[in-house]
Order: sequence, then structure tokens, then C-alpha cells
Amino acid sequence: MSSAALASGRTSGVPSRWADPKGPMEPRQLQPDPSTVASFDRMWANLHNLGLDPTTGGYNRFAWTTEDAQLKEWFADQAAAREMDLVTDRNGNQWAWWGNPDELPGRGLVIGSHLDSVPSGGAFDGPLGVVSALAVVDALRTRGLVPDRPIAVANFVDEEGARFGIACAGSKLLTGALDPDLARRLTDSDHTTLAEAASAAGHDVRRLGRDEEVLARVGTFVELHVEQGRGLVDLDRPVAVGTEIWPHGRWRFDLEGRADHAGTTRLEDRQDPMLDLARLVQTARSTAEQHHGVATVGKVNVLPGAVNAIASTITAWLDARGRDEERVRAMLVDLRRDFAPVTEESWTSATSFDPVLASELSGLLGDDSPAPLLSTGAGHDAGVLAAAGIRTAMLFVRNPTGTSHSPEEFAEPDDCHAGVEALTRVVAHLAGGR
Amino acid sequence: MSSAALASGRTSGVPSRWADPKGPMEPRQLQPDPSTVASFDRMWANLHNLGLDPTTGGYNRFAWTTEDAQLKEWFADQAAAREMDLVTDRNGNQWAWWGNPDELPGRGLVIGSHLDSVPSGGAFDGPLGVVSALAVVDALRTRGLVPDRPIAVANFVDEEGARFGIACAGSKLLTGALDPDLARRLTDSDHTTLAEAASAAGHDVRRLGRDEEVLARVGTFVELHVEQGRGLVDLDRPVAVGTEIWPHGRWRFDLEGRADHAGTTRLEDRQDPMLDLARLVQTARSTAEQHHGVATVGKVNVLPGAVNAIASTITAWLDARGRDEERVRAMLVDLRRDFAPVTEESWTSATSFDPVLASELSGLLGDDSPAPLLSTGAGHDAGVLAAAGIRTAMLFVRNPTGTSHSPEEFAEPDDCHAGVEALTRVVAHLAGGR
Repeated sequence: MSSAALASGRTSGVPSRWADPKGPMEPRQLQPDPSTVASFDRMWANLHNLGLDPTTGGYNRFAWTTEDAQLKEWFADQAAAREMDLVTDRNGNQWAWWGNPDELPGRGLVIGSHLDSVPSGGAFDGPLGVVSALAVVDALRTRGLVPDRPIAVANFVDEEGARFGIACAGSKLLTGALDPDLARRLTDSDHTTLAEAASAAGHDVRRLGRDEEVLARVGTFVELHVEQGRGLVDLDRPVAVGTEIWPHGRWRFDLEGRADHAGTTRLEDRQDPMLDLARLVQTARSTAEQHHGVATVGKVNVLPGAVNAIASTITAWLDARGRDEERVRAMLVDLRRDFAPVTEESWTSATSFDPVLASELSGLLGDDSPAPLLSTGAGHDAGVLAAAGIRTAMLFVRNPTGTSHSPEEFAEPDDCHAGVEALTRVVAHLAGGR
Repeated sequence: MSSAALASGRTSGVPSRWADPKGPMEPRQLQPDPSTVASFDRMWANLHNLGLDPTTGGYNRFAWTTEDAQLKEWFADQAAAREMDLVTDRNGNQWAWWGNPDELPGRGLVIGSHLDSVPSGGAFDGPLGVVSALAVVDALRTRGLVPDRPIAVANFVDEEGARFGIACAGSKLLTGALDPDLARRLTDSDHTTLAEAASAAGHDVRRLGRDEEVLARVGTFVELHVEQGRGLVDLDRPVAVGTEIWPHGRWRFDLEGRADHAGTTRLEDRQDPMLDLARLVQTARSTAEQHHGVATVGKVNVLPGAVNAIASTITAWLDARGRDEERVRAMLVDLRRDFAPVTEESWTSATSFDPVLASELSGLLGDDSPAPLLSTGAGHDAGVLAAAGIRTAMLFVRNPTGTSHSPEEFAEPDDCHAGVEALTRVVAHLAGGR
């Protein structure tokens, strides 16, 4: 997106290409009805200022903060406006039900995503899936569809793990993939624990943990998400169906040195961990190239962090991913040999979404040819639910630059509306109805 | 110092080698009277817990904080106990006067240093000079010396610049080397300005700036300081006289990239400033080696700072110093060529202390042979006063490891006491007296 459009978006509340479409739209294969488009655009504008940092144009929407509470309140208002029943589960995830989820156990169809962000994140990663899911409810009702099973829109808490370091914390707690005792003890950069933060937000953290009652309601989960890459740009298509999530992990490197005076300590007497950090960054890059994966050092903590002191300790976090587990493990072998100690903070094996369902949806969404099937390097709540044995699918919406986790993250309005229409068709297909 | 001694020091309040000397001391050339030793040790123990971080063993004593106020209160109490007249000047520096400083204008003899620290700093950098100066007053009085001019012990505010980024802020404001408008606008990492912080501490910041009245009182300044290197270890001597401070500066590097998703952005599509940081750290090291200076990257700020996001911007600070100005400038030429933009945040030319005085004190302090003369790479308030035309000298006390700006910073008790005796002789010599 151009910086002018971005600047306009920052000040007016709605990006200019959203507020001022250039003339009448061309007919499109995936096009919702006008009232659904209006509903989507209205919700999108609602969310624009929430957690926005006007200096960067990015969003800071972290779990169990004031912004998080405002987002949850907004979600609750949307559920109420649609006369959906709001359930906040034991782990803080929100579910807005259309129909009684306990009437047909194991048959509920859930759509949705998350509303939290990385630091200075984009507007689309997460919210696009939640807003689209709410718009789908409007679209189905406009069409007079009466679903043959309960439908929910979900808002998963703490998907990004930006504050406490564990991604998909809400869905992992729900499925038992994250130990609740461990979760309660996670700390943010101010040494506040997740237990303290969630309690301060009014949540009873004693009840965190795997929730059979909630899981029993979920027959199928479909998450719509902005693409975080340029697969759809290259294919010239607005929407794809997800096939799998690459295996990925996070590792912490504790680089030890000796604090000393920057002005008086001879170079040969130094133990400066900043030199180790430089080598780590370069080794991570070269090993990722060699194994055709990706590796990133995006977070670094330098102690004591004074201009005139040699660092005593540097903690650096590595994010590494690859098409298969062997590639990622091979990258770590190289790094573990050169740097110690290395702590694995998280590991997620490759996750496949239901292949029969993916194929079915691909056919459903292609008018001329099937919608493309794409794998992704990004983790999602859908991956956590799939790993827990739930039938799961993902839809991706085209991202013209591929950029994500950045204020520059973007999707064209037409493509977002196409996403709503695609998800509407999926729900209408899966929830049968009349 | 051994980790056992350090651990003991942390828990008992006094390092074990201080609390438990091994039998009677051998006769030493620089040895104060027992009551002065007791006074010094008592003051040292007083300060032990103030601003101590028990987990690291380091001190956090930053300007205009609660700890800073406690240190100033402690200093005021020491002045009162010695019936010295406390003056807090317009810039927040404290002066405890023995005698009327306005009676003999321009003839006052000032000794002292500072009480603030770098983050997780050592116990000696600063406090050793203040505590020694107070002990010198005791020693002179024990000897019945009546000085022929007013004597002050000074505690300069904000020497380290740890909070607001400008080292020697108190002495630079006093001499006019730091613009008061600029100083008031300096911000800490929480975006609090120096003006706000000092005002909150009860200081009238409208009156910051060059203070002729205070400067007129200072004829000579002698600062005692722990050595921040191993010059005295190599020479096997407890005390040296300073000759000059190396030219030094601080530069800020703004490394720009593009935030993006760590899992989905292909390596070839990335603009990752972490790779530039790695190269900056290595280039700084190699250019310092080439020009026989020192260069350090000790502070780094990574935005957005998420594990799963490629950094958008990295700010890195370089501290560079060398024996002469040409060497330091040559290092920067290399770095400016490779990295832009580079902002010079501070620059201090080489500062020579009064060579006649240095030579005189060197002779005075050597019983067999003159005390060694040492230059230093560290900046000091003494350097600021010397640059402002005040007759200035420094004494350095041996540091067995050379380590400074670290919890490991240390000086042997015997060497600290020798420092007190050396400074006592200097004052007795300069203040004539009977």
C-alpha cells in the first residue's frame, strides 16, 4: 500500500482505498451482497483506532491489557447485536453461538480467529478472520439460511504470544497443549505473570486448562486469515485453502560475557557477548539458506544495556521454520554446536489440515478452476485445533506485498469481501441448511 | 574477587575480605590512622545496600530517582555529622564545606566524586571517591590540621548518564558544557524528561545552567577514583596520579529494515536490520583493533522486538575512544562509510590534567619512587572541570581485575585505605595548614 494511502488511513480511520473506491466495482466471482459488504466495512472501521499507535501506524493489542479488554467488549457487543449467545470459556476465549451448541454435540461449526497483535502489528492478522466470520453470519441471514447445526464465531485469546512468549496460548490451553501451571507463571517484560495479568482483567485463572465441555461443541473449525506471503499474488487469485503449517519452533540463546567499562578495558581482555550475537545472527541466516528454511533473530535483550558498558549477558531468540521437521532440526544442529546454552522454548510439528475437507473446499470456491491450495510457515489457532484432532480448515486472503507483522500489512477491500463470500459459501456448504 | 567473597559480600553487607582481615596488617607506606580506617569502613558499610540489586550484586543508582535521593540524604547526613555546610547548587551537585568558601574566592580545595552508577554497576566507581574524601576530613582533623583555605567534599549528580544518556551531566551543566535547555528535554527509557524527573525530586530545574558563583569557589579539584584498568596491577603499586583522559564519543546508528513475519517471508525478500547490526558490531571491533583504540556496542534497541517478527528498526549505540583524537576520528570514518545515518550524540576531546600539579603529587605520594602517572579511557567530572580551566588532579586506586561498570568491580580494603592516606597527604600539602 502506498504511504499516502497509509497516512490517509491513519488519520481518517479508514484507509483511503476503502473509503473512496474508484467507481463501481467490476462483477466478481466472489462478491457478497451489499448489506454484508457494508456490515464488514462498518466493523472494520470500528476497530481501526483500537490499540493503534499513531506514530508507527501499527497496533499494540496484547493479551490481558486494557486494549484486549476493549476488543473483547467490542466482540461481545457484536454478538449481542446478532442475538448470539456469548460464552467466555475457562481460558478466556470468546464464542458467540448461533443456535444451542449442546443440542447437537460434536457438530458445531466454528469460524473465527483472534484480535490480538504482535508489537506494532498490522490490522489484518487476526481481525480479518473475526470480522469476516461476523459478516458471514449477516450474509447467511440475508440469504435466509437456517443452519442445520449450531454455528459459532470464535475470538481466541493471546494468539500472538506477544506479551508472555507462547503463541496460541488460548487455544493451546483449551486443548491441553499448554500446561496451565506453566502458563500461569509466564511473565511479561515487566515481570507481571500471566496469572496476575489475567486476574487483574477479571479472569479466574484457577480454571485455566483443557476444557472438554467446550471442545465437545466443536465439530469443525474454519479460520480465515490474511496470507502472510505472496503465494496468491503469484497465482493471481483472491482466496486459497490451507493445506498445512510448517514445523516451527523458538529457541533462546543465552550469550554470556563479562560486564566491563567500555572505555578502559583492552580489546584483548574483553568477553563481549555482542560479538557472539553478531556471529549467531549470521550463522542463523547461512544455515537457513543452506537448508532452504527461514531463521530470524527478532528479539534481543542486552544487559546491562548501557552505552559505556560492555554487555554482561545477551539473550537472543531464534525463530526457525522449514518445509519439514528434518530441515529445521538440521538448522539447530549447526547452531547448537556453535552456541551454548540453547533452550527450546516451543516446538510445533508440521500440522496438516483435513485433506479431504481442503480438497472439498478448494472445489467449492473455484468457479472456473479449484481454489489454490497453500501451505504456510505461520502458526495459527487452527493448527492447534487440528493437532488436537478437530476437523479443521483455513482460508487465506491475498496480501499484495506479502508483508505481515508490520504496519504495512494490507489486503485490498475487494479481496477481503471475496474472503467473506468464500467463508459464507463454506459455512452454507458445511452447515447444510435450507 | 572470588565469587565466594562476592556472595558473602552480598548477604552480610560487607565483603568478607573487609569484614574479616587476615590478622594484623603489615606496615604500609600509605596507611591512615585507625580511627580514619574505621570511619571509612563504617561509611562503606552504610552504602552497601543502597540501590543494590540482590540478584545480580550490582547497583542501580540513577539520577533523580528514589535511590539518588537516599544517596544525597546520606551525603547530607555525613556533612552534618562533620559540621560541614551543605550547599546543593543550581544543578543538583552537593558541596559540603569546611570553612567559608566565599572568604578566599578562587582558593577552595574540593575533593570528591559521584554516588550514581551505571545499570548493574559496581560499588566503587564514584562512591570510593566520595567516601574517601569524607574520610580525609576525619584524618585531617585527627591530625589537628587547620587548613589555610576552605575545603569541600563534592558529590556530583548524574555522572554516569545512565538514565538520560549524557555522562557528567551535573558537572557539565555547572561549567556550561551542557546546554540547560537541551538537558531539561533529555528523556529516559520511559519518556520521562530530566526536567520532570528532577522536578519530581524537588529540584527547581528552571535554574539549571552555568553557575559562576559556585565555580568561583573552586580553586583546585582532586578526584579519587577506582582504576578502571590494570595499570596499577602491572606496576604493583596501590595508587597512581592521573595525567589525561582519552578523547571519546558516543554515536547512534539507526539501522532501518522492514518488519515482516518471521515464518512466511522468504530470505531473499527480507530487509532485516539484524544483519546490519551484526556487521556493525564486527566492523567496530576490527576498526578499533586497526587503530589501537577501543569501540563498544553495549546498548541496542530492537523494534518491534517480537520473536516472530523481522525487526523494522534497530538503534545501536557505539562508544569509541583512543589515545588521540585522530585515532577515534579514523575509526568513525570507516563506520560512517558503511552505515548511515550515524548521529554523534557526544564528543569529548582529550583532557589533560594540570601537568605541574600531577608531577608534584606523584613526587609527594612516592616514598621510594614517584607514584605512577596514568592516562585513562574513562570520562570523569574531573575532566569536565579541567576542560573548564580549573586546576584539577586525579588519583587512581588499584583494581585487581581491572573490571569496572560491573558487579565484579573491586578494590582491596588495604588499597582503598591507601587511597584515603594518599588523598589526605594531597590535601594537607595543598591546603597548607599548620
